[in-house]
Amino acid sequence: MTVVLKLGGSVITDKETPETVDDDALTAAVDAIADADPDRLVVVHGGGSFGHVAASERGMGRTTGSRDAADVWAVHDAMRRLNDAVLDRLHDAGVPALPVHPLSVAARTEGNELSLPLDSTARLLGEGFVPVLHGDVVGHAGSGATIVSGDELVTRLAAGLDADRVGLCSTVPGVYDADGGVIHRITDVASVEDALGDADATDVTGGMAAKVRALLALDATAYVFGPASLSAFLAGESAGTVIDG
Amino acid sequence: MTVVLKLGGSVITDKETPETVDDDALTAAVDAIADADPDRLVVVHGGGSFGHVAASERGMGRTTGSRDAADVWAVHDAMRRLNDAVLDRLHDAGVPALPVHPLSVAARTEGNELSLPLDSTARLLGEGFVPVLHGDVVGHAGSGATIVSGDELVTRLAAGLDADRVGLCSTVPGVYDADGGVIHRITDVASVEDALGDADATDVTGGMAAKVRALLALDATAYVFGPASLSAFLAGESAGTVIDG
Repeated sequence: MTVVLKLGGSVITDKETPETVDDDALTAAVDAIADADPDRLVVVHGGGSFGHVAASERGMGRTTGSRDAADVWAVHDAMRRLNDAVLDRLHDAGVPALPVHPLSVAARTEGNELSLPLDSTARLLGEGFVPVLHGDVVGHAGSGATIVSGDELVTRLAAGLDADRVGLCSTVPGVYDADGGVIHRITDVASVEDALGDADATDVTGGMAAKVRALLALDATAYVFGPASLSAFLAGESAGTVIDG
Repeated sequence: MTVVLKLGGSVITDKETPETVDDDALTAAVDAIADADPDRLVVVHGGGSFGHVAASERGMGRTTGSRDAADVWAVHDAMRRLNDAVLDRLHDAGVPALPVHPLSVAARTEGNELSLPLDSTARLLGEGFVPVLHGDVVGHAGSGATIVSGDELVTRLAAGLDADRVGLCSTVPGVYDADGGVIHRITDVASVEDALGDADATDVTGGMAAKVRALLALDATAYVFGPASLSAFLAGESAGTVIDG
């Protein structure tokens, strides 16, 4: 049973204050992971007030790059500080976490296609470690370096590692319908298209509709849920909105 | 013209004192790189008093691994501290350096074969950045994680990136013959076999004979030289011992 878990940047950081970890939320998430002690787990975390702030200050996005190494380093280093905080907590809780930095392994073609060789992640997973990836900067042909989002990594990891379950833990309890209720199950985009606007307009890395489309395309069953349902998800139960194409 | 440059751990650190950068030596090497301003350069650095100490304290080597994430993290983190120091200097000198951590990208099979996908390194290089790799820990099938040396990375990078020149800057001015003189040119192992013992018995990542054998197998011309010849090497001149199979 291979599980890919995304911890949203909004969950583990205080998005209002630059470079601030939300201690209570991160501790709760880490405790849930340590208690579940899953067999094969890959964790991905977003940028929150670390990466998003650093990237937007420099005008960098998924297709807008920078050729200035100082810009690229600043965004990467901010994400690394958050990654270090996540790793520290996981280690304190006894989770055998090791970092996998997308800048070191991934690259984009001129046509925005992401290559993400999984040799390291798959091997670490096979040896009982918990690889921890994060939104990052990556080399981009013709554009210097651009942003790769945690969500983009999640779908690539799920497909490449043949994951069984994918969990997206964000600050909302699931995907909302037009009336603000949580949709229980999504099996195709068309049936919920009206409700899927940009759930979070300040998130430059893509809205909910794009996320749902990418998750529907996976073989794995995906779950979009809030922090309160993380333990249930890790225990193999249903949580939030089930997305199963 | 693609150049792969290894800065030996003994050159840039004080090998006698744990986790100590040799400031003068590192500054001199960085200044030589900044002055040369090479077109396509990949830098690899060794572990010196950072990685070697951390690895030997934990009994880790190229084939002896650890399944304890605390061990693996300790060695990686020590190497990252050295890598940060190297990157800081390079940035201060205006070199557009970015880190590529082997733990994030490489893996070993049960038979000790190293996979090192070069998507990220090649893309960063193509976009005008200077990728900086280092000796590190990597996931190893059946052994947890083991050590990958800077020298091993150099030969893999040189072959995979189709490098034109490879430079190994160490504390000696070249490969010594049996009388302690520097050999000018090596074109086959047999002709110098007697002289090639273990130049540095405390270096767990392989002696000079193994290095020469690996360099002879490359299409690129390799140079083994001391810090005083770094500028000459980067200027495209001959330096130290030329190894050309």
